[in-house]
Amino acid sequence: MDRIPILTMGHFLLVTIQVDMHDQLALTLQDDLTNKITSTLAKGVLIDISSLEIVDSFIGRMLGNISSMARVLGAGSVVVGMQPAVAITLVELGLSLTGVYTALDVEKGMQLLRRQIDADFYHLTTDGNFVEI
Amino acid sequence: MDRIPILTMGHFLLVTIQVDMHDQLALTLQDDLTNKITSTLAKGVLIDISSLEIVDSFIGRMLGNISSMARVLGAGSVVVGMQPAVAITLVELGLSLTGVYTALDVEKGMQLLRRQIDADFYHLTTDGNFVEI
Repeated sequence: MDRIPILTMGHFLLVTIQVDMHDQLALTLQDDLTNKITSTLAKGVLIDISSLEIVDSFIGRMLGNISSMARVLGAGSVVVGMQPAVAITLVELGLSLTGVYTALDVEKGMQLLRRQIDADFYHLTTDGNFVEI
Repeated sequence: MDRIPILTMGHFLLVTIQVDMHDQLALTLQDDLTNKITSTLAKGVLIDISSLEIVDSFIGRMLGNISSMARVLGAGSVVVGMQPAVAITLVELGLSLTGVYTALDVEKGMQLLRRQIDADFYHLTTDGNFVEI
């Protein structure tokens, strides 16, 4: 396992994390994802962590980094499918995933991304500038 | 890694196979997938194998089984994202994945599933029977 696949679905990219992340895999994912955002002009990234039973500070930082990278490339990002036990552990560890949007499943994540895009569009157009989204 | 996550996207289910399959994992996937098809009334299953670099007879048989199971439960299925080298090896091994639909990526797979559903609908309605899809 040397890289995590990134699926394209319309304007969104979907990443399903199923294996334990290590340094090199996380770096490769960040590289692949940023390249894919620019090559596909994606508007949003969904990161599914439903099969992760442990989210430690390394994964937490990686999720934060990916969100920030997507944001500066003009794409939203949502972490979906977090298991209840993971949410409990995260808060107990003091990791609150600041700056990372979350949703219960892929569909709700997509709705959230669409709302973000619509809000941006509305904000930009009411400022008098037209930006194609 | 004891199970492969199954994502729900509208009427479709998405499975991304990223790890080497072994007997138990394949059985668990078949169980989970058939249960999910019945509980969500899914109309189609997308199986992404873009990160598999080897598809042997075991995986080939598993894909065939999953397709057949989905079919008897009233859902279509498409295997998406096969790497070119995998296609070459499959044919050289004499594994032609009979009965398994394939598409280049998730989007094309979804289009194929939608066409299948439309075709079934047309077929059923022109026979004089109405079936809700």
